[in-house]
Amino acid sequence: MIEPIGNQYIVARPVYSANAFGEEHKKKHRYHKTFLDHLKVCCSCSTEKARRIALSLLPIASWLPAYRVKEWLLSDIVSGISTGLVCVLQGLAYGLLVNIPPSYGLYAAFFPVIVYFFLGTSRHISAGPFPVLSIMVGATVSRLTPMANTVAMDFPNNSTSNEGPSLDDYKVMVAATVTVFSGIFQLLMGVLQVGFMVVYLSESLISGFTTAAAIHVLVSQLKFILQLNVPPYTDPFSIFKVLNSIFTQIEKTNIADLVTSLIILFILFVVKEINECYKATLPVPIPIELILTVIATGVSYGFDFRNRFNVTVVGKMESGFQSPITPDMKIVQETIGDSFSIAIVGFAVAFSVARVYSLKHDYPIDGNQELIALGLSNVVTGSFKGFASSTALSRSAIQESTGGKTQIAGILSAVIVLIVIMALGFLLEPLQKSVLAALALGNLKGMLMQFVEIRRLWRKDKYDCLIWIMTFIFVIVLGLALGLAASVAFQLLTIVFRTQFPKCSTLANVGRSNIYKNKKDYSDMYELEGVKIFRCPSPIYFANINFFKQKLIDAVGFSPLRILRKRNKAMKKIRKLQKEGLLQVTPKGFICTVDGLKDSDEELDNNQIEELNQPINTTDLPFQIDWNANLPLNIVVPRIELHSLILDFSAVSFLDVSSMRGLKTILQEFIRIKVDVYIVGTDDDFIEKLERCEFFDDEVKDSIFFLTIHDAVLHILMKKDYNASKFNSSQENDIKFDFTTHTNGGLRNRECRVSVETKF
Amino acid sequence: MIEPIGNQYIVARPVYSANAFGEEHKKKHRYHKTFLDHLKVCCSCSTEKARRIALSLLPIASWLPAYRVKEWLLSDIVSGISTGLVCVLQGLAYGLLVNIPPSYGLYAAFFPVIVYFFLGTSRHISAGPFPVLSIMVGATVSRLTPMANTVAMDFPNNSTSNEGPSLDDYKVMVAATVTVFSGIFQLLMGVLQVGFMVVYLSESLISGFTTAAAIHVLVSQLKFILQLNVPPYTDPFSIFKVLNSIFTQIEKTNIADLVTSLIILFILFVVKEINECYKATLPVPIPIELILTVIATGVSYGFDFRNRFNVTVVGKMESGFQSPITPDMKIVQETIGDSFSIAIVGFAVAFSVARVYSLKHDYPIDGNQELIALGLSNVVTGSFKGFASSTALSRSAIQESTGGKTQIAGILSAVIVLIVIMALGFLLEPLQKSVLAALALGNLKGMLMQFVEIRRLWRKDKYDCLIWIMTFIFVIVLGLALGLAASVAFQLLTIVFRTQFPKCSTLANVGRSNIYKNKKDYSDMYELEGVKIFRCPSPIYFANINFFKQKLIDAVGFSPLRILRKRNKAMKKIRKLQKEGLLQVTPKGFICTVDGLKDSDEELDNNQIEELNQPINTTDLPFQIDWNANLPLNIVVPRIELHSLILDFSAVSFLDVSSMRGLKTILQEFIRIKVDVYIVGTDDDFIEKLERCEFFDDEVKDSIFFLTIHDAVLHILMKKDYNASKFNSSQENDIKFDFTTHTNGGLRNRECRVSVETKF
Repeated sequence: MIEPIGNQYIVARPVYSANAFGEEHKKKHRYHKTFLDHLKVCCSCSTEKARRIALSLLPIASWLPAYRVKEWLLSDIVSGISTGLVCVLQGLAYGLLVNIPPSYGLYAAFFPVIVYFFLGTSRHISAGPFPVLSIMVGATVSRLTPMANTVAMDFPNNSTSNEGPSLDDYKVMVAATVTVFSGIFQLLMGVLQVGFMVVYLSESLISGFTTAAAIHVLVSQLKFILQLNVPPYTDPFSIFKVLNSIFTQIEKTNIADLVTSLIILFILFVVKEINECYKATLPVPIPIELILTVIATGVSYGFDFRNRFNVTVVGKMESGFQSPITPDMKIVQETIGDSFSIAIVGFAVAFSVARVYSLKHDYPIDGNQELIALGLSNVVTGSFKGFASSTALSRSAIQESTGGKTQIAGILSAVIVLIVIMALGFLLEPLQKSVLAALALGNLKGMLMQFVEIRRLWRKDKYDCLIWIMTFIFVIVLGLALGLAASVAFQLLTIVFRTQFPKCSTLANVGRSNIYKNKKDYSDMYELEGVKIFRCPSPIYFANINFFKQKLIDAVGFSPLRILRKRNKAMKKIRKLQKEGLLQVTPKGFICTVDGLKDSDEELDNNQIEELNQPINTTDLPFQIDWNANLPLNIVVPRIELHSLILDFSAVSFLDVSSMRGLKTILQEFIRIKVDVYIVGTDDDFIEKLERCEFFDDEVKDSIFFLTIHDAVLHILMKKDYNASKFNSSQENDIKFDFTTHTNGGLRNRECRVSVETKF
Repeated sequence: MIEPIGNQYIVARPVYSANAFGEEHKKKHRYHKTFLDHLKVCCSCSTEKARRIALSLLPIASWLPAYRVKEWLLSDIVSGISTGLVCVLQGLAYGLLVNIPPSYGLYAAFFPVIVYFFLGTSRHISAGPFPVLSIMVGATVSRLTPMANTVAMDFPNNSTSNEGPSLDDYKVMVAATVTVFSGIFQLLMGVLQVGFMVVYLSESLISGFTTAAAIHVLVSQLKFILQLNVPPYTDPFSIFKVLNSIFTQIEKTNIADLVTSLIILFILFVVKEINECYKATLPVPIPIELILTVIATGVSYGFDFRNRFNVTVVGKMESGFQSPITPDMKIVQETIGDSFSIAIVGFAVAFSVARVYSLKHDYPIDGNQELIALGLSNVVTGSFKGFASSTALSRSAIQESTGGKTQIAGILSAVIVLIVIMALGFLLEPLQKSVLAALALGNLKGMLMQFVEIRRLWRKDKYDCLIWIMTFIFVIVLGLALGLAASVAFQLLTIVFRTQFPKCSTLANVGRSNIYKNKKDYSDMYELEGVKIFRCPSPIYFANINFFKQKLIDAVGFSPLRILRKRNKAMKKIRKLQKEGLLQVTPKGFICTVDGLKDSDEELDNNQIEELNQPINTTDLPFQIDWNANLPLNIVVPRIELHSLILDFSAVSFLDVSSMRGLKTILQEFIRIKVDVYIVGTDDDFIEKLERCEFFDDEVKDSIFFLTIHDAVLHILMKKDYNASKFNSSQENDIKFDFTTHTNGGLRNRECRVSVETKF
């Protein structure tokens, strides 16, 4: 029974090597689950499991019955209406980014919400178009209609509908096809349960990603604010191409549009500040987007901006829905890659935003279910001529901040969109496109403010800061899809880096008890003579085994291989001398009967190098050599003080095959120069694995494992005592050994010591 | 002083929390080197350093003066001649793969050896053309000369030289340009010291990579053996395209070529077996390649195979060297990507092979110096109209196995090539190309035998086995350059995987001392009541923090958040009752004066959920609640036995920012339901980092750290004793507490316990 005695840590037990412990405490035989067992569990079926899966596939079934009408409905209605209006405006604005008539944007704002209502797991995000996705779809559209590109150039001056239906229809068809197939990809990923990927999106990465995405959105809206013709680029470096295009034609800016946008932006920021300051006193935030839209539309209509200042307006809105389409397989072949990127980015964005709210309000979201919901949204939206959707941070922020509690708010926002689609669309016809763009920009402030993260992260964790910065740069430079891939890859690399250069340290005893700490950290350290305790605080694998070896060599102060070779070289000379009868073994050691032997073979044959790496073979010699004493014949072998090396592997969570070979080599080298190696702090699995990999042999034995550093240290001390007594008793043997006690702790075990007399 | 007493581990010291230990043993202030300091060391200059760098840049300066003429020269000469002959044949064969006249292959076999002699660090590899690199260059050549492609189709029937010099010259120019620029890339990489990358090429990866490369070489030679016209593909999936192309035209096979090749291959294998079996008795291995070449050339010339069987022969050999060229910048623009891939693959192959021999003969090789040597080789070779070179495993194997000791053998092989270039080339003109191909194939056996690795690796380490298989598949399917990149990425992912799903375990005491092991492993375990010891054996970061949380929740058996919410819900009810005066506090607890209160607000507002996650506020209540006792009014709160949780973080080598937040959340949840959390086994840096990241607050304090599990356990036991005595003495207070001892160990600290009387 463990009993505390005052505030004392008192332990008395035998010293345990792993083997000794194993003998005393029998291990239970444990059945380790095989891959097949896991598969069985995965594939087993029960009523409960079926019910759970069904519920998880239709999240509405779990939250709608628990809906509390009197408490939530009102705020859901308020939120729904506000969000709905923004949906309409953003739908139109993002339709512009896709290069199709804005009215199609309304479909993209309507269908996803309906599907997400039934299938989504987040309560607060507003499904629908996202600017960056719209740009991606737009780029595909432009690529497949190269002719349309030049048309788009003239676009601001001619209402699109004048271009004849065939071209626009084709563009819509491309957008819809891409959308359907991105949806199919998402559905597939959801069904294949690859939603677990989201664990690779760390906070730092998401923060950097959304900030860069905000910059992309900002740049994408510039052309509408300045009313310039910028071809849509999406390849890597697109952001620079767009900026270049804008600055080369900056003099063509439509001043009326610019001024309107600036005014709108200014009002937006001021009113949003007011909303923020008086959050407590205002019953609902001022619906400034709505007010501005109404005023801007009125002014534009009243003063006939379109003809007077040549501004671009939303233009003819078709009312009602259009008949669904089936994707064009010819288009599919050419856009399959784009669809995949869109699927990934759409999911990444939606999931990032959903996670922000799920963390805030503390409810679970399910990556796989999100994939299914988004996938089906896109399939449905695409079929009805909408374009790829996900969620927009700004719109979701509105839905949540105006009091939205559940997706009921979402469905109400869809109703607003529906009303506009069916009846009120014509009212928006005189609205300037630059106003839409300015309204979209007004909500980016929050995302852009994430730049302050950098400083915070730098203080906390350099690697995390690096992830933020690199993600930002990658996404800015390479675009969202490639940038995201590069960031995730980079982030995973940081994990490798963190383990690749472990802070290895030499430990020593503190306070003469069983505590061992970094030698450099404390002043009252106690280091056993001839014993090094080396700690590696990370897994060892192919990429850091050489680093580990180097650190170990630095810590002990010599390369065991070098010592081994020097000793073997010296051995060869001694053996040669002995054969030639120039060496006499005396009771007091051996005496060289020749002086000043020439150092003929100082340079060694490469062929013989392998031989030098072998264990020192002393079986044919009638005496043994103390390498730390003076050797005859100018043979110089570096003296080493070390007799025991303890490797603290308590933080080495795994070894791979490459590192195992490297580790074995260095252990062998140490063992061959008579340094005892002990490995401590490993768990049982670790030793079992080494056994399976045939790690142990005659030199590296499985008796090197001890439970703790202290066990190993006590074992070494004990051995020292034992050896000393053995030496003392062996003095009566036929050959007389001259045993000299070395105060430096240079004690060997398994080997008797003969001091070597030298004559020069 | 630590003194062993028999075989006993005896320790008596105070129980240490990290804080207590820190007070007793003052930490030294350590100056941590900043990035700037490292830079200073890097950029500092001394004579010694300059000498070392100079020597490392010119390895020959260190090994040539130590060359032992009488011992090594003979074997170097034998090896040099054998290798030289193979060089000639391989040069010609690989020239075919580049789609240029074979005689240019001799330049590729000559110049690299000369440069490598001076600059290379490996003693055994034979620099020169490598089949897969040749294919890569060949593909670039074909891409830039689309017309040439169709010409190449007719190629076997017309000697190349008939095609007019302009086309061939252009092809040679393309090959040379690509080669020069791949050399420039390698030089740059060498100068920028990115040779450290090679640590990412693990043994399993190199084994899989070279095996797949052998398959690529095999497939590439098929067209020469069957004498079919296969356009050179190198995009991903090229291997399937080539095989498809071969099988669709298999009926066009030239039977004479096929028969010759099969005979050659058969003889080659038999004689190589003989060489292997009688290695000991034969003075030199039978130079079967040479014999076969001589015979094949003679037979082909004598029986006029070219005209009789329509076989393709080497054809006109130009003798002497050609004037150097400068790369064509127009070609550079179009081939810069190819050059980069070739640079990487060339380096990867050469380094892999060099490492095989450096491991075998135990001498160091230097990745950066290898890059410089290969880079300069390629620049020189390209300038003299050769094509990209690296090393071929088969040729290096010959150089080493015939007794090559140093690069002297290499330089001699270059002399042989030189002789053929200058004078003897014309002798090889009647040689069949299929013979060259068969000779190249004959040496692939060793590489293909590496398939047996799979079984060995599977037994040793599943992840390493997976790396092998995936590398093989990637390289086969995607080609060498892309495949290598994918394999390295995959291999790094495995490191993440290994840490991502740690085998967390619950520990318990073994043998009543300070040893704690996995509860499931031993039978004589002792678990303290109400205490869980949880061990996570890997770093915790963004990708596994949720996994960690889930494992922890599984280990303790409940979700602390759920308990906290239930308790807070119950608290609200109790407070409501108390306000309404329905609850009376008595000395024996509290009594509810109403029975069967309706459960009106079972479903909670989402808004209030956040409130429920807050700490339980009991300051306004005149009593405290024992959550494990029966509560009034049908309030059901799950009872928990746990009072202390010990997290063994000795193997948690780092935390990132994402995981820190996750960890803090779960710690808070436990602390809020009055479970004391202790973290043990961390090093001091770990705590410092948490402090820097503002991890600690009023709830999660920095006093939770203890040195070892046993310290924490003793602390818990002590606290239990202390609390028990405090309870006993507090019975004289004005409010009488009914202290009931719970044998299940459900003891709380910082909280007195009131049993709650219930009346229904």
